[in-house]
Amino acid sequence: MPASPIRKLVPYAEAAKKRGIKVYHLNIGQPDIETPEACLNAVRHSDFKVLEYSHSAGNESYRKKLTEYYSKNNIHVNADQIIITTGGSEAILFGFMACLDPGDEVIIPQPFYANYNGFATAAGVSVKPISSSIETGFALPPIKDFELAISEKTKAIVICNPNNPTGYLYSAEEMQVLKQLILKHDLFLFADEAYREFCYDGEFTSAMHLEGVEDHVVLMDTISKRYSACGGRIGAFVTKNKDLLDAAMKFAQARLSPPSFAQILGEAAVDLPDDYFNKTKAQYRERRDLIVSRLNAMPGVFCPNPGGAFYAMAKLPIDDSDKFCQWLLESFSYKGQTVMLAPATGFYSTVGLGKNEVRLAYVINTDAINAAMDCLEKALEEYPGKIIT
Amino acid sequence: MPASPIRKLVPYAEAAKKRGIKVYHLNIGQPDIETPEACLNAVRHSDFKVLEYSHSAGNESYRKKLTEYYSKNNIHVNADQIIITTGGSEAILFGFMACLDPGDEVIIPQPFYANYNGFATAAGVSVKPISSSIETGFALPPIKDFELAISEKTKAIVICNPNNPTGYLYSAEEMQVLKQLILKHDLFLFADEAYREFCYDGEFTSAMHLEGVEDHVVLMDTISKRYSACGGRIGAFVTKNKDLLDAAMKFAQARLSPPSFAQILGEAAVDLPDDYFNKTKAQYRERRDLIVSRLNAMPGVFCPNPGGAFYAMAKLPIDDSDKFCQWLLESFSYKGQTVMLAPATGFYSTVGLGKNEVRLAYVINTDAINAAMDCLEKALEEYPGKIIT
Repeated sequence: MPASPIRKLVPYAEAAKKRGIKVYHLNIGQPDIETPEACLNAVRHSDFKVLEYSHSAGNESYRKKLTEYYSKNNIHVNADQIIITTGGSEAILFGFMACLDPGDEVIIPQPFYANYNGFATAAGVSVKPISSSIETGFALPPIKDFELAISEKTKAIVICNPNNPTGYLYSAEEMQVLKQLILKHDLFLFADEAYREFCYDGEFTSAMHLEGVEDHVVLMDTISKRYSACGGRIGAFVTKNKDLLDAAMKFAQARLSPPSFAQILGEAAVDLPDDYFNKTKAQYRERRDLIVSRLNAMPGVFCPNPGGAFYAMAKLPIDDSDKFCQWLLESFSYKGQTVMLAPATGFYSTVGLGKNEVRLAYVINTDAINAAMDCLEKALEEYPGKIIT
Repeated sequence: MPASPIRKLVPYAEAAKKRGIKVYHLNIGQPDIETPEACLNAVRHSDFKVLEYSHSAGNESYRKKLTEYYSKNNIHVNADQIIITTGGSEAILFGFMACLDPGDEVIIPQPFYANYNGFATAAGVSVKPISSSIETGFALPPIKDFELAISEKTKAIVICNPNNPTGYLYSAEEMQVLKQLILKHDLFLFADEAYREFCYDGEFTSAMHLEGVEDHVVLMDTISKRYSACGGRIGAFVTKNKDLLDAAMKFAQARLSPPSFAQILGEAAVDLPDDYFNKTKAQYRERRDLIVSRLNAMPGVFCPNPGGAFYAMAKLPIDDSDKFCQWLLESFSYKGQTVMLAPATGFYSTVGLGKNEVRLAYVINTDAINAAMDCLEKALEEYPGKIIT
C-alpha cells in the first residue's frame, strides 16, 4: 500500500504549525466554501431517536431524490442503479473490487488521483499508466498510446473528468474517442466526476451521456466537493449494468451501510436552488485566474490554464518536488508563513515523472492565494535545489 | 465475495412488508434502544460552517477523549495508538489488509461474524475455522484444535468477545489460553469487542488486558452497539504495535477520513454518566432471559444461555435454516405477522454446519419478542421441512 502523497507531508505541516508558522493549504482539495446552510440544517433539525443503520445501498428516499439530481444533469438512472457509498473513495474501491479480478489491469492517464493506486493495490489490480503532458495542458493521450497499453488483461479505463490533479476538462470529442475504445476492446469505463459542476471553459460531457455503452460505464460520484461536504463521506456508485450492481452490493452489505447523518445532508442538497453553483463557480474561476497568472509570472514556472475542478498543475524550476514540498514546511518561511503543496510525483505511476511539478488546490480565498503565491515566489528564490534555466 | 447472510434475505422481507405483513427483525443487530440524547444533541447543536475532512486517523480531540473511555475500561492507550474508522467494519478491514499479506491464514472459532469472511476475501486472506459447539454453549474450542489448525501461513487469531453470533463471553482463563497461543506461535490476536459493555454473567476480559503481548494485540472497536449509533459508522483500530499503526494509516489516508458528524457524537458519548450502561444492560438481560426461556420451551428447540452481547443461537428442528428463514418471509404468517432470523449457515465457514441453527438478535422490546416467539412457535409447527424428533 503506497502512502498518500496528499497526506504524507501532514506531520511536517503539524510541526511547522507548532513552531508558530502559518501554513497555506494548497495541498488538499478541502474547499473553504461554506457547506450550504440548508444542508447542515437538515441534519441539525433531524428528529429521529435511533441512529440506525441505513439500507446497505443507502436510504431509498435519498436514492430516489438523487435520480432528480442526475436527471437535471441529463443522466437518467433509477434508484436501483445507485449505491450510496462512504465517500467517492468507496465508490472507487467498489469499482476496483467488485468489477475486476485480482491480476486485471486498468489504464489510467497519468498524472492521476493518487488514491486510485491505493485502491488498485487493495484490489490486486495493476495500473497501467499512459502519460498526458503538461505541455498540452494534460489533454487525453493519443489513441495509439491507449492501443499500445491495452493487453488481454486490460478490463477498464479510469478517467477523472474534470480532472484531479490537472484540472483538465475532457471535450465531447475526447469522450467519443473513449467510447470507441471501450466498445472496440470490451472494456469498462470508470468515470470519476466529483467535479462535474466546476467547469469554467467548455461543456461537460458525462460518461453517462455516451450512448450505446450503458453496460460499460460506471460512475464514481461524491457530494464532497459539490456541496463542500467532504467530512460527510457520502458518494455514489452508479451504473446501468445489473451484474456490476449485484457484485458491488455484496461489498456494500459487508460494510453494512453508509453514514446516516450525511445522507440526510445529501438528500437536502438536491433541493438547493438551481443557481446554487453559480456563485461557487464564479469564486473558483476567480481563484483559478489569479493562481494561474501568479504562477506564470514567476521565473521558470509554467502552469497551463485548467478548464475545470479546482486544481492546477505547475512546472517549477526545482530538482525534486518531494524535497521541495518538505523543505517548504521544514526549512522555509516568509513573514512567518509558508505554503503546503502536493508533489506531483505521487500522481504519476511511472517513477521519475512529476519531479518538477506540483499540484495546487485553489480552495482558499484570493487574499490567501496571493499570500501563498508570495511565499512560493520567495521560496523558489531561496530553495537550495532550484534549477536555473 | 460472499453475500452477507444477515442482509441477503432483505428483498424477501421487503416483499413481505409490501404484502402488508409485519416483520419482527431478529436478523440484524440493530438495537431499538434510543441513541443517548446528549450524543444526538452534540451533533444537532454543532455550529461549524464547513463540513471538512477530519484527520485521516480521526479528530485529535476525539482520539484524546477516547483514551479516557478506554482508561475507565482498564485499557491504557494514548491518542496516537487509535485510528478512528468508518464503523467497526473498517477496523476489521484495516486489520486484515494492513496487518496481513495475501495468502496468509487467520484462525477464527466458528460460528463467527459473517462479514469477517467478506473482509478476508477482500484482503486475499484465508480463514481457517475451528469449531465451537452449541452443546458447550460455544465455549472456546480446545487448544489442540488451534494447534492442529496453525500452519506456517497462520498469522492471526480473530475473536469476537462477547461473541457475535453466539453471545458467548470468554472467561479470563480462556483469554490466557489465547495469550499463550499467540506468544508460542508469534501470532496477532485481533479482538472485536463491539459488545464490551453487554456482559450479563461473569467478568469481561479485554485482549488489551493481556500482559506481555501488547505488540500482538489489535482491538477492533465500534460505537455502533455501545451507544445504539450504528448509522454513525464510527469505530476504532487500536494497537500498541507501531508498525501495524503505520500500515493501517496508509489505508486510512487512502480513504481520506472517517465521517465527521458521528465523530462529534462519539466524543460526546465519552462524557455520558458512568451509570449510562446499567439501564441498557438491564433491558438486554430481561430480553435475553425471555427469548432464551421462550425458545427452550418450544419442542425440539435448544438455546444455550448467552453470557453477553445481544445474540442467541438456537438449534431448531428443521431441515435447512436458509430455506426456513426464507419460508418465514415468503410463505408464512401468523396473525399477519412473521419473524426474520439469520440462518446460522452464513456464520460457519465449513459448508454443511449450522443447517439447523439460527441467530436471533434480541434488539426489540419484550412485547415484540413475545409476538416474534409466538410466530416462531407456530412456524415450527407448520414448516414443511420440520424434523420430528
